[in-house]
Amino acid sequence: MTDSKIPYDQASRDIFKGAGELSVATIWQRMADLDPQCGFGLLGNCCSNCNLGPCRIDPFGERAEVGACGATIDTIAARNLVRSIAAGCAAHSDHGRELVLHLAKVAQSINPSAEIKEPEKLKLLAQEMNIKTAGEEFRTVVEKVSEACLSQFTRHEGGAQFIKRAPQKRQEIWTELGITPGGIDRDIVEVLHRTNIGVDNDYQNLLFSGMKAALNDGWGGSMIATELTDILFGSPQPVRSQVNLGVLKKDAVNILIHGHEPIFANSMADMAQNKELLAKARERGAEDINIAGICCTASELLMRKGIPVAGSFLQQELALMTRAVDLMLVNYQCVMPSLANFARCFQSYIFTTSPKALFPGIEYVDVESNPDQEAEKLINLAIDAFEKRKNKAVNIPTAKMDVVAGFTPDNIRYHLGGYFRGSYRPLNDNIANGYIRGIAAIVGCDNPKMKSGEGHIQVVKELLKNDVLVIQTGCAATACAKEGLLKPEAAFEFAGAGLQQICEAIGIPPVLHNGSCVDNSRILLECAEMVKEGGLGEDISELPVAAAAPEWMSEKAIAISWYAVASGVLTVLGAPFRITGSQAVYKYLTQDIEQLVGGKFVFEADPLRIAHIMIEHINDQRAKLKLQPMKYTPKSDTVAVGNI
Amino acid sequence: MTDSKIPYDQASRDIFKGAGELSVATIWQRMADLDPQCGFGLLGNCCSNCNLGPCRIDPFGERAEVGACGATIDTIAARNLVRSIAAGCAAHSDHGRELVLHLAKVAQSINPSAEIKEPEKLKLLAQEMNIKTAGEEFRTVVEKVSEACLSQFTRHEGGAQFIKRAPQKRQEIWTELGITPGGIDRDIVEVLHRTNIGVDNDYQNLLFSGMKAALNDGWGGSMIATELTDILFGSPQPVRSQVNLGVLKKDAVNILIHGHEPIFANSMADMAQNKELLAKARERGAEDINIAGICCTASELLMRKGIPVAGSFLQQELALMTRAVDLMLVNYQCVMPSLANFARCFQSYIFTTSPKALFPGIEYVDVESNPDQEAEKLINLAIDAFEKRKNKAVNIPTAKMDVVAGFTPDNIRYHLGGYFRGSYRPLNDNIANGYIRGIAAIVGCDNPKMKSGEGHIQVVKELLKNDVLVIQTGCAATACAKEGLLKPEAAFEFAGAGLQQICEAIGIPPVLHNGSCVDNSRILLECAEMVKEGGLGEDISELPVAAAAPEWMSEKAIAISWYAVASGVLTVLGAPFRITGSQAVYKYLTQDIEQLVGGKFVFEADPLRIAHIMIEHINDQRAKLKLQPMKYTPKSDTVAVGNI
Repeated sequence: MTDSKIPYDQASRDIFKGAGELSVATIWQRMADLDPQCGFGLLGNCCSNCNLGPCRIDPFGERAEVGACGATIDTIAARNLVRSIAAGCAAHSDHGRELVLHLAKVAQSINPSAEIKEPEKLKLLAQEMNIKTAGEEFRTVVEKVSEACLSQFTRHEGGAQFIKRAPQKRQEIWTELGITPGGIDRDIVEVLHRTNIGVDNDYQNLLFSGMKAALNDGWGGSMIATELTDILFGSPQPVRSQVNLGVLKKDAVNILIHGHEPIFANSMADMAQNKELLAKARERGAEDINIAGICCTASELLMRKGIPVAGSFLQQELALMTRAVDLMLVNYQCVMPSLANFARCFQSYIFTTSPKALFPGIEYVDVESNPDQEAEKLINLAIDAFEKRKNKAVNIPTAKMDVVAGFTPDNIRYHLGGYFRGSYRPLNDNIANGYIRGIAAIVGCDNPKMKSGEGHIQVVKELLKNDVLVIQTGCAATACAKEGLLKPEAAFEFAGAGLQQICEAIGIPPVLHNGSCVDNSRILLECAEMVKEGGLGEDISELPVAAAAPEWMSEKAIAISWYAVASGVLTVLGAPFRITGSQAVYKYLTQDIEQLVGGKFVFEADPLRIAHIMIEHINDQRAKLKLQPMKYTPKSDTVAVGNI
Repeated sequence: MTDSKIPYDQASRDIFKGAGELSVATIWQRMADLDPQCGFGLLGNCCSNCNLGPCRIDPFGERAEVGACGATIDTIAARNLVRSIAAGCAAHSDHGRELVLHLAKVAQSINPSAEIKEPEKLKLLAQEMNIKTAGEEFRTVVEKVSEACLSQFTRHEGGAQFIKRAPQKRQEIWTELGITPGGIDRDIVEVLHRTNIGVDNDYQNLLFSGMKAALNDGWGGSMIATELTDILFGSPQPVRSQVNLGVLKKDAVNILIHGHEPIFANSMADMAQNKELLAKARERGAEDINIAGICCTASELLMRKGIPVAGSFLQQELALMTRAVDLMLVNYQCVMPSLANFARCFQSYIFTTSPKALFPGIEYVDVESNPDQEAEKLINLAIDAFEKRKNKAVNIPTAKMDVVAGFTPDNIRYHLGGYFRGSYRPLNDNIANGYIRGIAAIVGCDNPKMKSGEGHIQVVKELLKNDVLVIQTGCAATACAKEGLLKPEAAFEFAGAGLQQICEAIGIPPVLHNGSCVDNSRILLECAEMVKEGGLGEDISELPVAAAAPEWMSEKAIAISWYAVASGVLTVLGAPFRITGSQAVYKYLTQDIEQLVGGKFVFEADPLRIAHIMIEHINDQRAKLKLQPMKYTPKSDTVAVGNI
């Protein structure tokens, strides 16, 4: 394996040293085995949407220029892309739906108040949705909110509820373009319909339907997921915890929760505090029951409970290689099926708790009807496993890092509010005055094809140096947290003088962890709040903000990037979509679309260039808004970014 | 072009003779240009569901055995397959949804009664859906039926309405397997979610979710489309018409309607009867305004109005090559984008009337708000076009053929009912007594990769010889109609002695045209009726029936084949799904699944073997049911089919 084919961070590398001869292949090895990847596929010159195909368009124009039906590369590229958008939206939205159905169940439970951590937030949401709360029984409010949320998935008429949270100007743009999202499920199904053979062949029309579905992810399914998870399990508040594989403990019962589903993860976290179970664990020689997370479930638990993060997407296999994981629970999204082999080789219990995410070699545990009872059983099992392995050697890397997470659109107004508590005024002012250059969202997966986490770090460090306040979610956040960028102390080491002063004054990290990947919807709301506060333009597209997913991998990331662009945000992706075979679609995404929605895509692999494309865009926005010059000149070198 | 690469029927071949040197490529030429198709793609060894990929599994086991995430070929094959099922279901269901929304609009119109051809059928449907009709205003009933139908798409609780039409035993099988369909949109979206990276990796679990969605197509979206189209535009009754390109007339204004959307097609057909427009056409030298159909819109218009069929999917380009088409209207599904070039070269007006099916070079006409006015405008345009081309040479083949279409589960009980009018008793009796061996559904697309229509004809002729009554829909029906198999006289020439006697006694063709491809839902109901009538077992899976799609092409065909199998029907496909790289999935579909749902897949390209696989299955079913021996020995030779 070449150096670029192994993980970036030291903890991950250390794992390999102690692992001995591996009888299982890690994702880096599997990627190497797949080399070279299909050129047609990478360009997007391949269509397999019907049995006339698979059709391959010759990129050199020497053979087939169209598919069997006559579809051009433009149609094929757009069709494949919007089908990916639909798939990503389906993932996020189905996640959101699970929360809605859980809330509906809570409404029917013996004591709904006991199961809802944020009754006040629920009531606010009810009011926003025109649901009467005054004088109503709490149970009724819960029930009506769950019905109103469910109607977001099923509606056939009218726009989605939460688009009203977007700036007025933004809503008008969507109306004019005909991409105001409607019912979540319907918008997704329509994209699927359009991508059948002989339906939509106009790439712009296809992309419009994709944007509509994507907006219904960001301002719909994902936003519902975030809202309801906060209501059910607590709105995040800044919390200090730790991150990286070093959070595993030789002398504790180590339980990892991996995936994206927050409901049972919360049950497990609560049950791990159970005194009897703790006593039992101690009786068997453990110091503690140590719950930690992997991937986005990790971010969910970190944000709301301060539970440590063992690792990102790319560390899921490595975590098992420590031989210290007594139990791993997985659910839906981003779970490598290879984990079955790793669990067997490194002797961990592994179960899936989601009936829609089964894996060969991983047993399914039905936790639906009796979550507490199942959580207890599983923790007991982990204690048994600990007892068996407690005297065996483990291979836990020492590296771990402090992280402060838990920022949200709601609490940012307080933490950044200073004298104006409960307001975005100071944030906007500090941007306008030139202490903070702007805001950058650095999100998405980590990807062995790109830099395995390193990309995020380089981008974020460069942004910080240039006084850009960074917001992160998901595995991108985990990557930077491991590097120490998500603790307040990082401001001193990494931030430019302006940003440093602000962070110091308030005591926040220069990088604000907003949660899991569905929580990217929080960033939309933060943008909306900045616009609402005034002084930075009338629309998201005028803000000095930009977004990037330097190592995106999943179809959810495709959906997210699309709702960002369709919301008016310049979005840089570390790898292009598989559409580069179509000059028209490529040009449309990277140029033409900006005239329509205000946002556009930039495809750029180099982290430093990613940072400077974002900085340049932020500078341009600042100039258009006639903001004050930056207070301090950054120490970083200029990086040529060319025409973007 | 080799002989197998040009169309089978004489009319289609004749087109090429008179066309001169073509400056546009037909689908046969495009298929040749695409040769060889990708081997990885054909085997299904390719996954592009995330940006770790595209991943290609080495079919020889020498390189990558799993994708980057660790997904095996079994996972990849199943994941791609169920995503295709979801896409097919989305197409049919979105089509059904348009009818529901149209019905809702009718409920708001000035006089709903004037716009609903079958008020009695509407009331029956209302009663079936527990909607009160007695004493209710008609408008209210229409409104409530449209709401109840819409709830089939949006529901989150309870099973789909029309599964109650399936035999009790069949419903119990679905319940036991957990594949009772729920909300149409939700089931589709869940399949999409499961096929994201790191969600469902268990091929059986994936296929179960695919079956659930597919059942919600056959017993859901498609069935709703069929019901409402019948209610709105008339329940079909047997009707004689003509089929093939010879239905175009040199001296008439020729208007072709192509696609799958029946609503505006009906407006056009009605408007073509307008006396003023007819007078105007005659004034300009035309004998008539000649509306004809292509693809499934053709079947819709044929079934309900006796409007001739110009051609199947594969004849859409050829129709324009006659230079006699004054106007072609297209809508969604199976419309080749190449038509834009053909229309330009051969000087036809062409428009799309569906906003979700745009094509480069084809103008969109919004017919939504004023369908009659737009229909009038379009016919006027066609008259103008006729006037310009009336003295120019055309290249209309002479071949056309009589066809009797218009059979449905409702009217079969009368036409086959004989003395027992309104009953399936005589049909069941004639099967039990050995006059009719069984029933075969021969459906699906025509496909240049296979036999371009010839496959259907060979299969059907062999079945008829063996006393199998054939039911057809869509382009398969058109292919056989062109050969003269869908007229009552065909019984004398093609049917075995037993089937011939029955057809002769009743006066029906030996092949019953059931409509367009959404109308395959009719065949499900016919099976349900046969079970209900008694004497042929307690479930669809016990009936002496089988289905085949010898030349399937679209993802809708994938969905259809899946709801057939999941309803208990042996289904033969002329080409395998792209799953043959996975031995496990292949075996599951062709063997194991039968133990679960009663139906299974057979993949077989040779038409004679397809027919005999079906005949053998029907014989087996007859033996299990202990039916009487067949009255007559067929004249056909035995064809070895091996183990199926």
